[in-house]
Amino acid sequence: MKVVKIMEFNRVKLTFSYDGTDFYGYQVQPGLRTVQAVLDETLTEIYDQDIRTTAAGRTDRGVHARGQVVHFDLAETPIPLEKLIMILKTKLPADIRALEADYVPANFHARYDAVRRTYKYYIDNQVYPDILRARYTYHVTEPLDLKAMQEAGQVFLGEHDFTSFCRARTDTEDKVRHIFDLAIDREGGEVGEIVITITANGFLYNMVRIIVAALVQVGLGRLTRDDLLGMLSGANRELCPYISPANGLVLWQVDYKTI
Amino acid sequence: MKVVKIMEFNRVKLTFSYDGTDFYGYQVQPGLRTVQAVLDETLTEIYDQDIRTTAAGRTDRGVHARGQVVHFDLAETPIPLEKLIMILKTKLPADIRALEADYVPANFHARYDAVRRTYKYYIDNQVYPDILRARYTYHVTEPLDLKAMQEAGQVFLGEHDFTSFCRARTDTEDKVRHIFDLAIDREGGEVGEIVITITANGFLYNMVRIIVAALVQVGLGRLTRDDLLGMLSGANRELCPYISPANGLVLWQVDYKTI
Repeated sequence: MKVVKIMEFNRVKLTFSYDGTDFYGYQVQPGLRTVQAVLDETLTEIYDQDIRTTAAGRTDRGVHARGQVVHFDLAETPIPLEKLIMILKTKLPADIRALEADYVPANFHARYDAVRRTYKYYIDNQVYPDILRARYTYHVTEPLDLKAMQEAGQVFLGEHDFTSFCRARTDTEDKVRHIFDLAIDREGGEVGEIVITITANGFLYNMVRIIVAALVQVGLGRLTRDDLLGMLSGANRELCPYISPANGLVLWQVDYKTI
Repeated sequence: MKVVKIMEFNRVKLTFSYDGTDFYGYQVQPGLRTVQAVLDETLTEIYDQDIRTTAAGRTDRGVHARGQVVHFDLAETPIPLEKLIMILKTKLPADIRALEADYVPANFHARYDAVRRTYKYYIDNQVYPDILRARYTYHVTEPLDLKAMQEAGQVFLGEHDFTSFCRARTDTEDKVRHIFDLAIDREGGEVGEIVITITANGFLYNMVRIIVAALVQVGLGRLTRDDLLGMLSGANRELCPYISPANGLVLWQVDYKTI
């Protein structure tokens, strides 16, 4: 009788940050510097195994992450997982930084098991923008009416068809998403940045950037709360032909059921 | 009788910001991208006159500015000064931004007339640093004792000989400076960044970065308030052989007598 040795893999969950400025987006693309390409190549080099990660969500070109999550499978290795974060610190470029690595059950999936995703969007609303925040903020010169934005933002809470707030060229059929929380605050006093924090079970393509752009129109007095309600019920992207720049957006956190 | 036409110049005061990351420091150096070189070339191109600016203070390589000030002289020009900021917005690279331009008396001097200079220094004191602040913060992993730093920082207030807190290879004879204010705060709650704000009549070469480095040693429990007092009175740089990184430092504001 032949004995077949089965190769065993351990699944790893890795949380990491990146500054999206100098990447051509998240997903691997031939010949381009993408977040996934750099991460996968670095892990492959460290473990001397072919490693391919699966992310909680792909971010657009220019979008940043504070807490992106991936999973990957690892065959037997002499490197203890506790050492991985330190090793990655020396191997990854300065614009990616690993935060946490844990073994998870073999059926854990970074994308499908995520129950909540949180994004933050930063707006610099001064006449003279802060150049030291330019990489990470959308500069809006005209003063925004924060209260109007806060009131109008409530229309997005709960479960809705977000077809009007999704880039048309998406192959996602189901456009219903549930927004659990949407907060609009001014950080650091009167002249501080406006921060829009949105938590949902999931997001459609460009959804946060389109919602933010619509809220900015409200803040400028060009759209009302009722206009946003009409856009939601109309379920047609042409009703909301706005999009805010990628660089103000940060994938903040991805939550999972306790695993 | 021969009539000699005297060329008339108007002196301009210009306030501007820059992200120091991608410059080889402030001062013109042949073949290198410096802040002054980029600014002078841009102004020379706009006015079609040879413009050479004089700054309130030269910042080191990697140091940023929120409110750097220069003066320069301008011969007759058809361009109204009110337009300069807008024109500079289109002509300057993304990492320099002009904020304000005014005509000033012909004897105004950006460096010699400055009565107060304020610098801010940012420390990220989390175990896992915020990658989106990495360009602008010094990352200290071990927790800093803020109260000890605040108490020790008071020794620098007032007029002192700062020889121990100045890079030795300086040609400045007079090492006495007057620190008007030194505040150490944590911005944005428990886990926020530590911000050290120092205002003085002037600063010696690397003085802020050396003072900050000494205060960090206090925060780590390796130096005491009395050690700092000893360093001040000892007037010898070898007593304080520390320096913190350039990228956490921002030239925040330069104040002048009312002009």
